[in-house]
Amino acid sequence: MMKWWGWGDPKISFSIEHKPNLWPWIAKTLDVREMRENPPVSRDSVRMPEPVRNESFLRGLKTALSQNQIAGDEDVRLDHSYGKSYPDLFYARRGIIRRAPDLVVFPESHDEVEKIVALACEHGVSVIPFGGGTNIVGGVNPKETGRMVVTLSLARMNRLLSLDPRSNIAVIEAGSLGPKLEADLQAKGYSLGHFPDSFEFSTLGGWIATRSAGMQSDAYGKIEDMVVALKMVTPQGTLTTRTVPASSAGPDLNRLMAGSEGTLGVITECTMRVHAFPAARDYRGILFPTFEDGLAAIEDCLNSDRHPSLIRLQDTFETELAFNMKAPTTGLKGFIQNQFKKILKARGYHFPAIMILGVEGEKLNVRRTRDEALAIIKKHKGFDLGLEVGAVWQKDKFNLPYLRDFVMDRGILCDVAETSTPWANVLPLYTKVRETMNAKFAADGTPGFIGCHLSHTYKAGACLYFTYACRQQPGRELEQYYALKKLVTETFLKNGAALTHHHAVGTEHRPWMEQEVSKTGLTALRALKSGLDPEGLFNPGKLIPGPEPLAGWAQPTEPNQEGAREPAGTQSR
Amino acid sequence: MMKWWGWGDPKISFSIEHKPNLWPWIAKTLDVREMRENPPVSRDSVRMPEPVRNESFLRGLKTALSQNQIAGDEDVRLDHSYGKSYPDLFYARRGIIRRAPDLVVFPESHDEVEKIVALACEHGVSVIPFGGGTNIVGGVNPKETGRMVVTLSLARMNRLLSLDPRSNIAVIEAGSLGPKLEADLQAKGYSLGHFPDSFEFSTLGGWIATRSAGMQSDAYGKIEDMVVALKMVTPQGTLTTRTVPASSAGPDLNRLMAGSEGTLGVITECTMRVHAFPAARDYRGILFPTFEDGLAAIEDCLNSDRHPSLIRLQDTFETELAFNMKAPTTGLKGFIQNQFKKILKARGYHFPAIMILGVEGEKLNVRRTRDEALAIIKKHKGFDLGLEVGAVWQKDKFNLPYLRDFVMDRGILCDVAETSTPWANVLPLYTKVRETMNAKFAADGTPGFIGCHLSHTYKAGACLYFTYACRQQPGRELEQYYALKKLVTETFLKNGAALTHHHAVGTEHRPWMEQEVSKTGLTALRALKSGLDPEGLFNPGKLIPGPEPLAGWAQPTEPNQEGAREPAGTQSR
Repeated sequence: MMKWWGWGDPKISFSIEHKPNLWPWIAKTLDVREMRENPPVSRDSVRMPEPVRNESFLRGLKTALSQNQIAGDEDVRLDHSYGKSYPDLFYARRGIIRRAPDLVVFPESHDEVEKIVALACEHGVSVIPFGGGTNIVGGVNPKETGRMVVTLSLARMNRLLSLDPRSNIAVIEAGSLGPKLEADLQAKGYSLGHFPDSFEFSTLGGWIATRSAGMQSDAYGKIEDMVVALKMVTPQGTLTTRTVPASSAGPDLNRLMAGSEGTLGVITECTMRVHAFPAARDYRGILFPTFEDGLAAIEDCLNSDRHPSLIRLQDTFETELAFNMKAPTTGLKGFIQNQFKKILKARGYHFPAIMILGVEGEKLNVRRTRDEALAIIKKHKGFDLGLEVGAVWQKDKFNLPYLRDFVMDRGILCDVAETSTPWANVLPLYTKVRETMNAKFAADGTPGFIGCHLSHTYKAGACLYFTYACRQQPGRELEQYYALKKLVTETFLKNGAALTHHHAVGTEHRPWMEQEVSKTGLTALRALKSGLDPEGLFNPGKLIPGPEPLAGWAQPTEPNQEGAREPAGTQSR
Repeated sequence: MMKWWGWGDPKISFSIEHKPNLWPWIAKTLDVREMRENPPVSRDSVRMPEPVRNESFLRGLKTALSQNQIAGDEDVRLDHSYGKSYPDLFYARRGIIRRAPDLVVFPESHDEVEKIVALACEHGVSVIPFGGGTNIVGGVNPKETGRMVVTLSLARMNRLLSLDPRSNIAVIEAGSLGPKLEADLQAKGYSLGHFPDSFEFSTLGGWIATRSAGMQSDAYGKIEDMVVALKMVTPQGTLTTRTVPASSAGPDLNRLMAGSEGTLGVITECTMRVHAFPAARDYRGILFPTFEDGLAAIEDCLNSDRHPSLIRLQDTFETELAFNMKAPTTGLKGFIQNQFKKILKARGYHFPAIMILGVEGEKLNVRRTRDEALAIIKKHKGFDLGLEVGAVWQKDKFNLPYLRDFVMDRGILCDVAETSTPWANVLPLYTKVRETMNAKFAADGTPGFIGCHLSHTYKAGACLYFTYACRQQPGRELEQYYALKKLVTETFLKNGAALTHHHAVGTEHRPWMEQEVSKTGLTALRALKSGLDPEGLFNPGKLIPGPEPLAGWAQPTEPNQEGAREPAGTQSR
């Protein structure tokens, strides 16, 4: 399990030890006059709410599961009370548990999940499917409905059930975490190739339930593109699809389960398209004079049918953050690097944008795609920084989420917002979002940072991933968060962009679902919901908005509860 | 419009004029002792049923549409009474119209469709969306429900509404026929790249409603993969999705509309991913000693990441048919070809299998993929027949459906069945289907033909497309058809294959939807249906089975009605 109050491994925390430039740069950018220490409260100060108990359900459960599969203790309930959204962490850090699950169950097979769901339906108990808990849109949080709430953890359903190497098909249990899943497949020479930022702590079932995109989605597709068949346990029985490569038998029910966010049932087994582990890989850094040059290079590559496996283009502001995350290099190496920077500046790289370019697959294809993409990139003034930058990126790629805890420890709001838009709108949208958010930071008197990277490409457009931060407004931290969240979301929707590209809906994006899928689209989703879950037991309060979408959405900041602060005791990363 | 009694352009018919080997080969293969002429009845002999009239609906319609958009005359109703399934043609050829639409309307805009649907809902009138009428699973046939039935033809909604060349996105009205759509796009340098066998007579909206696959789906995907956004008019309003390249906002509603077969609403506008018209194309023929060698070559190509745009591998039986369709070549050319055939036979090509290999796209990529695929193919004893065979195939590729009319004119049953299955199961399934069908032909005393081609490939498997034929059993032609249809379908489902890969469900595959999508999957589909179309007005009797799936499925053959026969007056093709 991750930290109950923050991101990732409880033994690891973000450190500025070898990053002397980082805090000064943050402080200057966000106009932070003093480094206000604001760590999470200690575990002992957390007050867990009394659990609701449905005794007849509990009796049934005891006959269906072993004792070690049923956990009602406070630590386990706390671990499953929140995902990792900004409000989640804000509350958890203060020791405020708004609604914990009343019980956590750990089924070990599809059949056990069927038993649990049947019992929940029989006794009117709410069920929240839970994978790794990395969700940042409120997708796993219990909501008060007057019922007992059970979180159904897939943690023990993490096996590779079968692999058909000839057909490139693997059957994997939904609770398999990224590293376990890849290790199992790679031991047999295969890979799924799905590496979202949350890879270390998220599960296959969670990826599918939220329509996740991995870093190499340009090569392998979003997770829903890799689904061959699924099993999902619903209150109306188990929905299963056939293991066939393609079908035209009615609407694709795999795509109905993908993105259902636990509101229709719990995905238990996933039949996935896999591929032989790539024989060759080439990941390198490229420096462009501007973000615009990088965008033009990408479009040119794709229109020339030169398709890298990964393209991650950081704008000049994210590039500046990346530069300031680096340890300064001394001695000869530092001298050379400094000279190099001067040369770049002299050549007009005043607003540099770093791109990570990854190509993987069959050897000859990799060499060709790399060489030919680099030739196109060169025409757009892209400067090849070589493999070392790619290796550093590979090493650090899963570490950035830890930085949020570090800045939240210091009174800083930090959030992300991702979307997608057609190519013709990428730059206009980028500009509009930056202008809008910066105007808001200025109006609030909290000078902000907003950076962006392009993270996934398609023939028709791309995903833009924004990260923004500013000083918290003490006493109204959540009002501040919700105002920014609403602003960035509505800026997306008013300007031809998706509500979300890969973070899903949960509670945080729920008010805007009508704008995203139309009124009739909501009618369709509600029909599915009441058809498969007529009592509304599965993950209530998520995905599908009520009649007043914004009602209850923005939570007011509660007065700080003064608890003991968390002792450090963590490794640096 | 196509022929009311058969396939394609009424001015064109299949001819054996330059194919002297064809009829003798058919007669020998199917044990046809005499060429029994059995042409369709004349138009005058067709008895059209009296239309049901909903007067209040008709009054409303007259205020909403112009007079020339409302057609109640018998010719137009006849043209919209059937699709092109074997039973459809069998009935039509005998002049039996089981249920005609009572009216056909021709909206010219999305807004007009909204008006028609609103009126239909207000007055309880059934609506059947109609594209080109090529459906071969009963998808456009009116069913008796006691209501007035209106067929809503999209024929006049065929415009390219907009093209965003930078984003590779085009907005196209759903009624655009293949040739019109491609001409409009190609005039601007773009292409959709979707060329199903029915291309000349089918529409974009029909392709999406049935999850069609074009011949080049290996390069561009099935039609649902090309959808960016859709507009669909339902009884609960218009469902619209956003024009974004990718999203994670709930289940993908584009995939809910795709495959809905007119049962949830009518698709009016399609926002599609297009691509610049390919700069280079290479289509050629390959000859393999056996079907198995061809299959091995394909798998080897795909596993080596050499991906042609089109692979169409005919088994030895379809290859034999193709050889017998050819005009004999005389003189020096004939001599050389005969020598060549002898050499091939001497080298072990006793059961030859022809493959069409197509590569298109950017020039250098095309050359490389072709050369490297050919090198792999050579290892599997594939013999390059060159571009001429590819050109002949390109010229004739849309003509095969005319052959069915020719054989039905001569008392022969002819049908097709397509499916998909994982690679490991392709050959076992192929063998099982052939054995099963041939055993049935033998048991019936009607020696049969069953050929197969592999028509679409995926990382995880492929589509197998079977064509079978045998003598009709006079007086029980439909019982015979339904017995074979049931047998081939159940052989697919019992042996790990899809109910249908690209022909959709309609009425012909409807009884097996539970095996395909599970009981709970049907619950989901029924929930969608009752949520969007609570009165059951849209395309009743299709896609979703009733409580007794096979009830009413197989129609008994009615005694022949002796009508006047159709005069020829058609060109040969």
